[in-house]
Amino acid sequence: MSVSHFAHDLELRVRYSETDQMGTFYNSRALEWFEVARTELLRATGISYAQMEQRGALLPLVEAHVKYEGRARYDDLLHIRTTAAMSGKASLRFECWITQKESGAAVASGYTVHAVTDPSGKPTRAPQWLVEALHGTIEKNA
Amino acid sequence: MSVSHFAHDLELRVRYSETDQMGTFYNSRALEWFEVARTELLRATGISYAQMEQRGALLPLVEAHVKYEGRARYDDLLHIRTTAAMSGKASLRFECWITQKESGAAVASGYTVHAVTDPSGKPTRAPQWLVEALHGTIEKNA
Amino acid sequence: MSVSHFAHDLELRVRYSETDQMGTFYNSRALEWFEVARTELLRATGISYAQMEQRGALLPLVEAHVKYEGRARYDDLLHIRTTAAMSGKASLRFECWITQKESGAAVASGYTVHAVTDPSGKPTRAPQWLVEALHGTIEKNA
Amino acid sequence: MSVSHFAHDLELRVRYSETDQMGTFYNSRALEWFEVARTELLRATGISYAQMEQRGALLPLVEAHVKYEGRARYDDLLHIRTTAAMSGKASLRFECWITQKESGAAVASGYTVHAVTDPSGKPTRAPQWLVEALHGTIEKNA
Repeated sequence: MSVSHFAHDLELRVRYSETDQMGTFYNSRALEWFEVARTELLRATGISYAQMEQRGALLPLVEAHVKYEGRARYDDLLHIRTTAAMSGKASLRFECWITQKESGAAVASGYTVHAVTDPSGKPTRAPQWLVEALHGTIEKNA
Repeated sequence: MSVSHFAHDLELRVRYSETDQMGTFYNSRALEWFEVARTELLRATGISYAQMEQRGALLPLVEAHVKYEGRARYDDLLHIRTTAAMSGKASLRFECWITQKESGAAVASGYTVHAVTDPSGKPTRAPQWLVEALHGTIEKNA
Repeated sequence: MSVSHFAHDLELRVRYSETDQMGTFYNSRALEWFEVARTELLRATGISYAQMEQRGALLPLVEAHVKYEGRARYDDLLHIRTTAAMSGKASLRFECWITQKESGAAVASGYTVHAVTDPSGKPTRAPQWLVEALHGTIEKNA
Repeated sequence: MSVSHFAHDLELRVRYSETDQMGTFYNSRALEWFEVARTELLRATGISYAQMEQRGALLPLVEAHVKYEGRARYDDLLHIRTTAAMSGKASLRFECWITQKESGAAVASGYTVHAVTDPSGKPTRAPQWLVEALHGTIEKNA
């Protein structure tokens, strides 16, 4: 049975600009890290998000959820595991787990839900090449 | 019957730094606007968050949720309605609704859940002055 | 004698998202505050930057300089004084002084130099209405 | 004759969160990229900035300058060349050149000047281990 999602792993260091006066990362950075993880996941499917936009398929956010589970300080090396799956014909869902690379301690996790739209913002069915990019890679990895 | 939350209204303009190449606000800015709204709500209760931190009560995020409902472009004037309520003895919940000031069109809404901790990050019961700040103002406004 | 620049004053509070683990504002925020100040200065001339972009005149940065002169913590109320002046026929220069509103203590100062371009990025002469917006207001204020 | 600076090269991709509605990177991101480059340069000397802070030596910015020379879009791969040098006994100067990795086209360049302070913000002489970290590596590289 085919697994209906594509997974990707990424390492990323906390920047000084991402900290706040509490000494850990400022909360909105989690959504920026989720975005970096989506970018690298899509590149790994064989079609980058920059190429997707050039082909006229945008993935604006519809919903985002973050659970804050632990600290991450400046220069900490983080691990981000991300999965992507179609969620209906015109929507994608990414799930992210951010942990400390060294200790494995949980930092934050969550998900984002994205519409598939044309450049004018009109929802469209996910293009076949996008569905295939996700599924094809799954089969290659199966 | 006393309503168990405190509400606050705020206006805010979208900064150029908050846009992205899709022409609307970048998704993580919603969490930054929620924070500005929390700051002003707490000030309106009579005790600012900066004063809370000086008194040793911090409100780190535990959870955040955002629904993206419409566009907001550079220089658009937004309206943010925020409510705050105790959620148990050691937790606060803020709800936010961001709309276009002029048209009333929905932009984003969501909530954040916060622990109450001491400066070392240890969860503590919400201090009496915080509970009273929220409740007292409610009674004054009732 | 006519003074060849337009001045504007603004108040702004430091956001939590703008702090870093040193406890003061993160250095790049100064450029974001300069931008907010430019936006409000241009609005005060009678033509907002959003309207300028709609009319096809963009002001991309060519150069920026910041001197960091003092601390600004979360929730501090800042004062920003900004001046604008044409600098040749196709270039604008803004100067900014950020101080603590209450004490007057210096926080940061600097300048930005902007080209005037069309939407494709091609440098153009500053449109007459822009020159007049700056000069007209000066005369009204003189 | 010993060359009095230490050089470091870094690659970095433009994040979606770093773009603005002009379609290129928002101007303040250049200062954030300079910071990432400083972080990696210091790590390459054998002592990371996080370790420096733990040893009580901070490097707050005193001055920053950026020249904007070309566009960088979402997902563009950039190259950053950075040099560091002592500038007197209590000050460091970093210079940065950001170019497009593939084409070599200039994106931005500039410098930052940093005081050496203790955790209270008091200027101090650069600690011997910092001077040696910069010089030692230079000699190793010479």
